[in-house]
Amino acid sequence: MELSLAELAARIGARLEGDPAARVRGVAPLDRATPETVSFLANPRYRRLLGATRAAAVILAASERGACPVAALVADDPYLAFARAAAVFAPPAPRRRGVHPRAVVDPDAEVDFEAWVGPGAVVEAGARVAAGAWIGPGCVVGEGARVGEGTRLVANVTLAPGVVVGRRCLLHPGVVVGSDGFGFARDGERWVKVPQIGGVRIGDEVEIGANTTIDRGVLDDTVIEDGVKLDNQIQVAHNVRIGAHTAIAGCAGIAGSARIGRGCMIGGGAGIAGHLEIADGTVVTAMSLVSHPIREPGVYSSGVPLQPNRQWRRNAARFAELDRLARRLRRLERALAERGKEEGDATGEGG
Amino acid sequence: MELSLAELAARIGARLEGDPAARVRGVAPLDRATPETVSFLANPRYRRLLGATRAAAVILAASERGACPVAALVADDPYLAFARAAAVFAPPAPRRRGVHPRAVVDPDAEVDFEAWVGPGAVVEAGARVAAGAWIGPGCVVGEGARVGEGTRLVANVTLAPGVVVGRRCLLHPGVVVGSDGFGFARDGERWVKVPQIGGVRIGDEVEIGANTTIDRGVLDDTVIEDGVKLDNQIQVAHNVRIGAHTAIAGCAGIAGSARIGRGCMIGGGAGIAGHLEIADGTVVTAMSLVSHPIREPGVYSSGVPLQPNRQWRRNAARFAELDRLARRLRRLERALAERGKEEGDATGEGG
Amino acid sequence: MELSLAELAARIGARLEGDPAARVRGVAPLDRATPETVSFLANPRYRRLLGATRAAAVILAASERGACPVAALVADDPYLAFARAAAVFAPPAPRRRGVHPRAVVDPDAEVDFEAWVGPGAVVEAGARVAAGAWIGPGCVVGEGARVGEGTRLVANVTLAPGVVVGRRCLLHPGVVVGSDGFGFARDGERWVKVPQIGGVRIGDEVEIGANTTIDRGVLDDTVIEDGVKLDNQIQVAHNVRIGAHTAIAGCAGIAGSARIGRGCMIGGGAGIAGHLEIADGTVVTAMSLVSHPIREPGVYSSGVPLQPNRQWRRNAARFAELDRLARRLRRLERALAERGKEEGDATGEGG
Repeated sequence: MELSLAELAARIGARLEGDPAARVRGVAPLDRATPETVSFLANPRYRRLLGATRAAAVILAASERGACPVAALVADDPYLAFARAAAVFAPPAPRRRGVHPRAVVDPDAEVDFEAWVGPGAVVEAGARVAAGAWIGPGCVVGEGARVGEGTRLVANVTLAPGVVVGRRCLLHPGVVVGSDGFGFARDGERWVKVPQIGGVRIGDEVEIGANTTIDRGVLDDTVIEDGVKLDNQIQVAHNVRIGAHTAIAGCAGIAGSARIGRGCMIGGGAGIAGHLEIADGTVVTAMSLVSHPIREPGVYSSGVPLQPNRQWRRNAARFAELDRLARRLRRLERALAERGKEEGDATGEGG
Repeated sequence: MELSLAELAARIGARLEGDPAARVRGVAPLDRATPETVSFLANPRYRRLLGATRAAAVILAASERGACPVAALVADDPYLAFARAAAVFAPPAPRRRGVHPRAVVDPDAEVDFEAWVGPGAVVEAGARVAAGAWIGPGCVVGEGARVGEGTRLVANVTLAPGVVVGRRCLLHPGVVVGSDGFGFARDGERWVKVPQIGGVRIGDEVEIGANTTIDRGVLDDTVIEDGVKLDNQIQVAHNVRIGAHTAIAGCAGIAGSARIGRGCMIGGGAGIAGHLEIADGTVVTAMSLVSHPIREPGVYSSGVPLQPNRQWRRNAARFAELDRLARRLRRLERALAERGKEEGDATGEGG
Repeated sequence: MELSLAELAARIGARLEGDPAARVRGVAPLDRATPETVSFLANPRYRRLLGATRAAAVILAASERGACPVAALVADDPYLAFARAAAVFAPPAPRRRGVHPRAVVDPDAEVDFEAWVGPGAVVEAGARVAAGAWIGPGCVVGEGARVGEGTRLVANVTLAPGVVVGRRCLLHPGVVVGSDGFGFARDGERWVKVPQIGGVRIGDEVEIGANTTIDRGVLDDTVIEDGVKLDNQIQVAHNVRIGAHTAIAGCAGIAGSARIGRGCMIGGGAGIAGHLEIADGTVVTAMSLVSHPIREPGVYSSGVPLQPNRQWRRNAARFAELDRLARRLRRLERALAERGKEEGDATGEGG
């Protein structure tokens, strides 16, 4: 794939300042770019690399173009324009069709002849795999599960029975969808399992990162709406609902029956308690714990700042007496007010 | 499966208020229940759904039955009664027997003829799989490992060599048991591996969630006692012991040689430091870090509350000066006491 | 394997105080050791077990040898000496060669005849597996990936296309290397995927724990340098670089483009924010969040201490008003200073 800068500008929605006929054939970071590649500047942290770049052109915001030593592709959102440029040059996802002789497809499963089932993959009875789907090596598609058109299970993915995955989804290695939710009732010292007979429904264009797990519902389904992006090692408990186009970073954990709105951004390692709702468009920063509903969109955080351990120990010890400190402060305020009044009385300043 | 309400009440230990002959054949949530299903109210959050339910009957506490528009199944513990009801109607776990032609069972392994080994599963030399066990697709049972009666490895589970799993356990996809513990000794700038030659022993009726990992011991075994319930993506390090009937929620991490008592409940994302003991019956809330032994049962927590980011930033910045604030408060108290004494002296109120 | 204490002392770099001819053939913990095994005391928590040990000898520090009832193997670093002793007695890692008939090796892959590919493993076109490597059951080695000499993929490990793993590495079950990084650009309410076309390079003698995930880079590679030790369930995002001989404990998460120095130790469950650098030799304690660069090596922490829930609730509530408390304290200080000045004025003590 080779393009002129003019063509590229048109395809990514950028304005070109430079030679429209110059030809490029890839994207590269500022410090590795060559006169045959375009680069980008989206994060100001990397501005120092701009002056020395050898790129054919740099995708950047209008405010940065003064410092650009080569052609500029000026975009309102340079990162979005870069994403499009990278997509232009990226090799297409591999496409294969057919069932590998070392795959195991149950005679009662339906695999479209435009789908691929790789070596060591298992497709059980009643499962349906649509056209263009990719069931990579070592994947297991349980009884009655459905994989939509163009959806890829990269490798070693497990779909439990009855799980439904939409179209053009991408499930990375180690993903588990439809494992039993964690549901037990206490009976004396023992736990009685609550059968988990709900399912999981995943919409279209959902991406699920490596080793992320999504449990099936107790009675109702766990639901991941269209366009949701989940990073690696996220845990989604039973009966959670994640609204369309919400993005969640790695290692986050979402407890049972939580309902996360549309277009939210949840930071890495964050925890969401069960049975609560989070408003559309909410942002939660990394490693925060959401223990109450969030009704107003906004940016929310918890946690305390990192410090050298010696200082931190002293401050953390004080945290354990914080309520007492606050009460002592209140007492002081009262004492001083009292004293002020007395003095006021004594000096005739009082009311 | 279809039952009269009278039969159901008897099987779940509830008292029926309503037509004993009415017939039901499933469980459903309050808002989806039909006159052929029973529902339940265990969490007061869902009380608002009670009035409009169309269920044949609702399992609930005596205190809720006044608001129940249909028959009531009154139980001391409605969630436990619901668990039993759901179990009555749940489809039985699938049972299969035999070794799938695409499984690989070493001639020196022993697989009971009442066990099932699925396609793509591997059972290595010296391993023993008992009657009624289920070794699902893609599972690996390492050399000399043992799988007890009726235990199910759902799919893509890995048991390392020598691991012992008891009876009627349920291991969800992606579980790893018996990987090496994280043991290294420093030698200058390099790390020398400490061979991990202990094993893992898992008791009876243990459930282990998707992608949870349990390391083998250094010299002694890592031990999970009977009836323990582990959610998804939990990390259990070498030589940990988890007491019987303890339940641990998703994403918790337990460091080496920690000993957790019986009947504990550990919240999601909690961390337990190494080489410490936690008393029987202890409860730790979500995302707390247990860095010291817990000798008295009770409910323990750490962390700070979620706030809008702007407020949180101000408070978090103050955390870093908390010890100084406390010292300033102490000085103020002294100054005021001193002043009081002086004034007392001056006014003749003193000692 | 059986050795005299004199031979063992020489091999582990310890000084023997006891019978040099006594013969031992294993290592064991203090309370399970027999006269045929050696034990060790490295953690003072276990000192109480020393007096009753029946070991042939105990590896310990000079300061502990007075309390040792049996022969002593005195070492500067008892844990390192124990690691070496355990390695002496540990059974050698199993070695196999050849391709199992139930493995699937693409005709365009190169597998050294001294390597082993186990049942159900898949090696794709263009992949190269070097001598002494072990591709365990259920592993997937993607197109063009490379596995160095003596490296072991235990079982159910997934290497995505093009990933490079060095020599003598150990990858535990469920590891995923080379999954797509989490890169999306916002386009209105939707996310546009940024193609992840970088790779992953892993050095020599790297150990990677069960279910740990390492994403491929966006354009450049994600890099894990020689001798790095990663515990279970760690998430390493795209374009991270981890310096040589750094050790990271379980459940830690490292966001995109973070650069962790050499010889660092990162505690369990810690989070490292993206696009920052951490100095060589830095130590971060468990469950801390590193949200800013660390330029000076040292020990760093965040978090608040565990408390009984009732006390914790009161203190946590105060955290939410901490900035206000600090402002009130400041006001009090000013008021008191003012008052002092006034009084000083009044009594003639003032400036």
